[in-house]
Amino acid sequence: MNISHIEHIGIAVNDLKEAIDYYEGLLGLKCYAIEEVEEQKVRTAFFKVGDTKIELLESTEANGPIGKFIEKRGQGIHHIAFAVKDIQKNLDEAVAKDVKVIDKSPRKGAEGLDIAFLHPKSTFGVLTELCENNN
Amino acid sequence: MNISHIEHIGIAVNDLKEAIDYYEGLLGLKCYAIEEVEEQKVRTAFFKVGDTKIELLESTEANGPIGKFIEKRGQGIHHIAFAVKDIQKNLDEAVAKDVKVIDKSPRKGAEGLDIAFLHPKSTFGVLTELCENNN
Repeated sequence: MNISHIEHIGIAVNDLKEAIDYYEGLLGLKCYAIEEVEEQKVRTAFFKVGDTKIELLESTEANGPIGKFIEKRGQGIHHIAFAVKDIQKNLDEAVAKDVKVIDKSPRKGAEGLDIAFLHPKSTFGVLTELCENNN
Repeated sequence: MNISHIEHIGIAVNDLKEAIDYYEGLLGLKCYAIEEVEEQKVRTAFFKVGDTKIELLESTEANGPIGKFIEKRGQGIHHIAFAVKDIQKNLDEAVAKDVKVIDKSPRKGAEGLDIAFLHPKSTFGVLTELCENNN
């Protein structure tokens, strides 16, 4: 693969507003966008930290992926997303190397990025997202 | 706080060698250092990705913090570390704001950094490390 940097770290939280208050009030980061991703049943809040973003994720429905994650494991780090070039080629490489993927081709995620997930069973327990900015 | 960037992301793995093979073989990252941190009962492997590092953590003893984490939650992302200036001042600010801290003053971590942890109970489930390079 041709990873350039960590695009973002996804963090599951119960209450977006309370979490934003902590990231701004204690850590001194600045929330620059809040976006709802209907397909994923989440509301997201973004912070920039160096060349990486923190993406807070609040579930909009209990049975969404973030709602289920929090029910099972509690709040915390949910996934890591790597910025790549030619996401389809990277996915094809993963499949060719017998890595289990959640998405065989990219779909649209937050901020209009093309995204796809590798399955944590193949990535040593880390839910891993690839993303590419083709906007 | 005065966070400049994400210094590293700590990932707990069962087998350092197998995990390194995946990070190098599939993700195309390069392990540039392996270090044992006796006090933490871990062997670590480092990769640079943009301005952030990935730190793989293998427990050297079952009752060490990483061994216990994996026993409870399985392999996966363990903590996030922010690079700060004047770590003691940042810790004092956290304590003054009633944030529960694991370390009230910094200690030595991998790569000779001064490090201290905030408690996940105060950080929305994210084990949070502050670190400063005073070498």
